Amino acid sequence: MNNLLASIPAAPMRVVDVIRKKREGQELSRAEIELLVEGYTRGTIPDYQVAAWLMAGVLRGFTRQETTALTEAMLHSGEVLDLSEFSPKKVDKHSTGGVGDKTSLVLAPVVAAGGLLVPMISGRGLGHTGGTLDKLESIPGFNVHLSLREFRRVLRGCGCSMIGQTEEIAPADRKLYALRDVTGTVESPYLICASIMSKKLAEGIDALLLDVKTGSGAFMKDKEQAELLAELMVETGERMGKRVVALITDMDQPLGNKVGNALEVEEVLEILRGGGPSDLRQLCLELAAWMFQLGGACDGPAEGRKTAEQLIDSGRALEKFREMVELQGGDLSVIDHPAKLPRASGNSEVRSPATGYVTAIESEAIGTAGVILGGGRERKEDAVDPSVGIVLHKKVGDAVSHNEPLATLYYNSDSRAAGARRLIEQSYRISEAPPAHRRPLVLGVIQGSGGN
Amino acid sequence: MNNLLASIPAAPMRVVDVIRKKREGQELSRAEIELLVEGYTRGTIPDYQVAAWLMAGVLRGFTRQETTALTEAMLHSGEVLDLSEFSPKKVDKHSTGGVGDKTSLVLAPVVAAGGLLVPMISGRGLGHTGGTLDKLESIPGFNVHLSLREFRRVLRGCGCSMIGQTEEIAPADRKLYALRDVTGTVESPYLICASIMSKKLAEGIDALLLDVKTGSGAFMKDKEQAELLAELMVETGERMGKRVVALITDMDQPLGNKVGNALEVEEVLEILRGGGPSDLRQLCLELAAWMFQLGGACDGPAEGRKTAEQLIDSGRALEKFREMVELQGGDLSVIDHPAKLPRASGNSEVRSPATGYVTAIESEAIGTAGVILGGGRERKEDAVDPSVGIVLHKKVGDAVSHNEPLATLYYNSDSRAAGARRLIEQSYRISEAPPAHRRPLVLGVIQGSGGN
Repeated sequence: MNNLLASIPAAPMRVVDVIRKKREGQELSRAEIELLVEGYTRGTIPDYQVAAWLMAGVLRGFTRQETTALTEAMLHSGEVLDLSEFSPKKVDKHSTGGVGDKTSLVLAPVVAAGGLLVPMISGRGLGHTGGTLDKLESIPGFNVHLSLREFRRVLRGCGCSMIGQTEEIAPADRKLYALRDVTGTVESPYLICASIMSKKLAEGIDALLLDVKTGSGAFMKDKEQAELLAELMVETGERMGKRVVALITDMDQPLGNKVGNALEVEEVLEILRGGGPSDLRQLCLELAAWMFQLGGACDGPAEGRKTAEQLIDSGRALEKFREMVELQGGDLSVIDHPAKLPRASGNSEVRSPATGYVTAIESEAIGTAGVILGGGRERKEDAVDPSVGIVLHKKVGDAVSHNEPLATLYYNSDSRAAGARRLIEQSYRISEAPPAHRRPLVLGVIQGSGGN
Repeated sequence: MNNLLASIPAAPMRVVDVIRKKREGQELSRAEIELLVEGYTRGTIPDYQVAAWLMAGVLRGFTRQETTALTEAMLHSGEVLDLSEFSPKKVDKHSTGGVGDKTSLVLAPVVAAGGLLVPMISGRGLGHTGGTLDKLESIPGFNVHLSLREFRRVLRGCGCSMIGQTEEIAPADRKLYALRDVTGTVESPYLICASIMSKKLAEGIDALLLDVKTGSGAFMKDKEQAELLAELMVETGERMGKRVVALITDMDQPLGNKVGNALEVEEVLEILRGGGPSDLRQLCLELAAWMFQLGGACDGPAEGRKTAEQLIDSGRALEKFREMVELQGGDLSVIDHPAKLPRASGNSEVRSPATGYVTAIESEAIGTAGVILGGGRERKEDAVDPSVGIVLHKKVGDAVSHNEPLATLYYNSDSRAAGARRLIEQSYRISEAPPAHRRPLVLGVIQGSGGN
């Protein structure tokens, strides 16, 4: 009836018809997608219509054209930074989120020390994965709530800055993400792509490196899902004129040894001093190499890796980190005295029930243990305790004796510690034989036609 | 993460998890369905969560158990009438809606005249199909807004009463239907079943006859869809202890000759006087026969048909109609003088462009023409003009000469008449040869295991 009636007067596009079209699995036009995104951002289209449309999209999927149109509509719902006043190439990195993933805090100073501009707008932790902003805020005084004017000032001062999403950036994404969170429509590679890319491309960057995590501690549990998301993001970025590369990286066990906000800053400082756990150092070097490559600052990833090593080992990256912390109001004394970082009042060890080898660490459980300790959020409005967390003494492949410590818990509440301990105990798998096969850290590189 | 976290404290059922479960195509428990329906009715669960859940349900479907649980939850969201004070069996009929379908106005008095109780709660027209309440209200003074107390009084007085849905009946359905209408989630046999059955079973009936329309003028365009809906409703009714039979009937052309509220009452009076178009009379007899059968008032549909014929031809059904109109405040003079019914100021004929046979009448277009004239609603809040409509002079199979009238339009606005005329012209298909095959009016009978 709608179509027949619509044929009589010149009928405007109706939201319910756009919903029905997606419900039937048809491709939406750019105009139809813009109608929804603009109307929702302006408040003329209600939550419930968008919720129905999102669910239809989750179940029916979107084409590449639709994904690009959605990303662009969300990007242009707010301000797009123009950083053309800066002469270096502007490069950022985004991770889809993992447990113990603190690479952003290493990469921003390393890549800025290498002469590129890193304008990084990051998020908070939600669920079992941590958030860059929460980690930074464990440095007393560090201010992630800069205005875009202050953001430029820090970039001008040291070549990198790390802030939270401002009101001006992609307001459509903020509204859509909040709705997806409560309507069971988070898990769609198309919607995840549009959400990530609309925010990142609003930063006014030339190129973007994506770290798409896969494994037990990632949102994308299997490699095929991770690859689809990576391909979508690379293609969407390139359709929008940006250089984009995605690395598929392992998240089958936590990255590094420390999980928890202040503990992770401590580990970042270890890396920036040339130490730290080898898996974390390796991944940071690899990601930095690709950022240099994307920004035209090296001739191939191998050279980029060498540059990153030199910037770390010479202390120049740590100096860059110090400059950024100073410009964003953070307490510089923690850099030389990490013991001044917030530290929980209690600690206790989780010991091995057997002698053998660690063959797996269920990293989603480790992340969840961190949330239970108070270091993360179950709901967006939850406060985060920077001082709690977990230090892993044994990682996959390590030999362990009966009763030897597997991990240390840092806690401020006995009952929370008990819950976290149970999860950590369950997350370690100890076997007589060492694990037969170890996944490499980087499982694949996805580049578009113009990505190299 | 949710599941892991949920395993630590005893977590309450979360709406978002129920949405995700349906999104993944899993069967919901009765408790999960009740959580949603009760929470939505009470206002503790917001529109957007229910909209996402509805869309997931439209695309994933529901099992028979889920459909029954949903129907029961919606039924028990409001009052369920107890008519046990009346000794006759209580039988109602529901039609899924068609063009020119005025059978309810004939059946209530016929079946009540046959000794059964017919407590009929009906709806309004929406889209291209008409509504029983709109038709009744074209009788000046006829009050469809009775309280449940007044409804009982009319039933006691004449054995049948026809009213609108009150606030007390299935409030969950009212809220859900309004939401489905604007979120593209109307077209689901499972949701349609739950909507119809929850309202009808709230009438306190013993048995229900369903008239499931299929064809160009019905919501279910193809027979398979109609059969699925019929089976769902029969099974759901029987799971809830009612006798239910569904007839699958043809809606490939309008039923009877008149479309429009007052025009249709006029045609009802023709039928109740023993005249009227043969297709309409046949279908009324067939439906009445099954209602008698369901109410145990006859021994097989053939005997029921004979009873119905006698009740019409003896004038007893017309007397029953008169009693009901009087008890509900309607102007009795229109019964003997139908010319007193509202009649539009203008009329004009649509003439045949060729000599030949009518091989099809696109009935959705005829229904839409009625809406354009002002006789129906595009939106729920639209007012309805009882006086306008269309009289079809030629039906499928009829021979027609060039320039002979196919139909007469009754209108109050020239511009609306022009739009309606175009649709009617387009809806008639005239060919040289008569149509090869004519579908019977009743295409199938669907009964449950205990339905006979």
